[in-house]
Amino acid sequence: MQEPPPMTNATHRAAVIGLGSMGSGMAGSLLRAGFSVAACDVNPEAVARFAAAGGQGAANPAEAAEGADVVVSVVVNAAQTEAVLFGENGAAAAMPEGAVFVSSATMDPAIARTLAARLEATGRHYLDAPMSGGAARAADGGLTFLASGSSAAFAKARPALDAMAGTLYELGDAAGQGAAFKMINQLLAGVHIAAACEAMAFAAKQGLDLARVYEVITKSAGNSWMFENRVPHILDADYSPKSAVDIFVKDLGIVQDMARAEKYPVPVAAAALQMFLMASGAGMGRDDDASVARLYAQVSGAKLPGMK
Amino acid sequence: MQEPPPMTNATHRAAVIGLGSMGSGMAGSLLRAGFSVAACDVNPEAVARFAAAGGQGAANPAEAAEGADVVVSVVVNAAQTEAVLFGENGAAAAMPEGAVFVSSATMDPAIARTLAARLEATGRHYLDAPMSGGAARAADGGLTFLASGSSAAFAKARPALDAMAGTLYELGDAAGQGAAFKMINQLLAGVHIAAACEAMAFAAKQGLDLARVYEVITKSAGNSWMFENRVPHILDADYSPKSAVDIFVKDLGIVQDMARAEKYPVPVAAAALQMFLMASGAGMGRDDDASVARLYAQVSGAKLPGMK
Repeated sequence: MQEPPPMTNATHRAAVIGLGSMGSGMAGSLLRAGFSVAACDVNPEAVARFAAAGGQGAANPAEAAEGADVVVSVVVNAAQTEAVLFGENGAAAAMPEGAVFVSSATMDPAIARTLAARLEATGRHYLDAPMSGGAARAADGGLTFLASGSSAAFAKARPALDAMAGTLYELGDAAGQGAAFKMINQLLAGVHIAAACEAMAFAAKQGLDLARVYEVITKSAGNSWMFENRVPHILDADYSPKSAVDIFVKDLGIVQDMARAEKYPVPVAAAALQMFLMASGAGMGRDDDASVARLYAQVSGAKLPGMK
Repeated sequence: MQEPPPMTNATHRAAVIGLGSMGSGMAGSLLRAGFSVAACDVNPEAVARFAAAGGQGAANPAEAAEGADVVVSVVVNAAQTEAVLFGENGAAAAMPEGAVFVSSATMDPAIARTLAARLEATGRHYLDAPMSGGAARAADGGLTFLASGSSAAFAKARPALDAMAGTLYELGDAAGQGAAFKMINQLLAGVHIAAACEAMAFAAKQGLDLARVYEVITKSAGNSWMFENRVPHILDADYSPKSAVDIFVKDLGIVQDMARAEKYPVPVAAAALQMFLMASGAGMGRDDDASVARLYAQVSGAKLPGMK
């Protein structure tokens, strides 16, 4: 077993499931806050790095969750979250009664509600807590969580959230509401990326000075958070993935599924999704999502920076 | 004739064609800067108000333009601009040689180039200067101009631009480039309004607290200038026109025309245009453009503020 943890949360034990760029940063934040942290990942090297950094490596979610007050799941979608909880060597049965499962994946609110109900039926708590912010903010404890759940789930999770979050929105008393807020954000974010790419390649097609377009638009009514953040990737011809095309294939796909289930039309988000699908289908799924601009350029003959 | 103008630009004569909410503010800015200003409008009451405020009323563009150093056209589209210049009692023939025509309407860059060529062939200058900013910024001389034209056109127009503009972008040495930048902005602005409306009515359909959605999104990656500016209209159920649905029917229509002419696909802007068209067709063309949210609500049963 491990040495006694040194700091303020000496009585708190946390588990982190998933040690990718986000999960490893969050696990580090928990360690710094004095948690005793056990973590697992499908990649043994990530687990070894975490153990070298003062954490406790675990073979699977069940082993990580044993004795934990809070289990933080940092996987990419609903299917992985379900497997983490209820799959082979899943966390649910290993968690102490009264412990809380913090689910950070972006997913359909209906699935979040279902997972919460299954877990709560066993006497554990579920916090629906999708997050935003990249690896840098994960590493420095500055993430934003869009969270909902019972007051018991919030109370149990709060010390861990305090360690990981710069901003915590408490958005309702049941799982699903955090997920719903996140999906509204993803609808907008996905549309704005596609629009930024459509506009920039259109500007290139007209021979405009793209750096000047960026300068003008970021000070004008056409600006968006995503335009300001993603267009520099286009200007620099840097499509190494800060956030991949396939993330929005997934998230706008969830928006479509939700909207269809509720008989709600989303024509603008649907058009944007088609562009992410085209970019992914054209082989750019793992590239930066600003790659949608490359697709527009390829089909139209527009010349973006870095293109011959 | 008028009294001698009192201030610094005593030798400058300006004409303003169009005294709507924008044009009357711009004419006022020119008067304050010491220009002698003659102006006309199809509405005689607007002309009478301008004369009472110290300007010189004119019966038509030709009369206003006589002897002017700079003629500022503040009409809504390319067809009106062409009529102002070359229609019956048009400004072009009345302008002194070497005077400059400042065109502020949003239009297809190809049309801006054609109008400029026609005017320049007569020995007058043309500045392609679409603007952004509302009536308040027009009144206080704080507009943004996205301008392009010959150095002679800029030089001749500069004193008037200094009086009317908070920000002047000089975007190229020929007409059409200002228009092209403006259309890129309008593509983005129109998509962002439609996306904001799609997202907010979707949030309402899911029963989310809309004020909370506004609070969260404006601090998140899904934010846009338009989301931040227009969603309060939805929250307040105030659809009195700050900017009307039909403006984006027009401007996204121009985007479609340009894109089709250049064989460039704009599926996201096309989807947004359909929503503005639906809202206009449903009778909301002259209402605020946030009315697109009401359309989404009407077809889906979502309940927005103010809806029964």
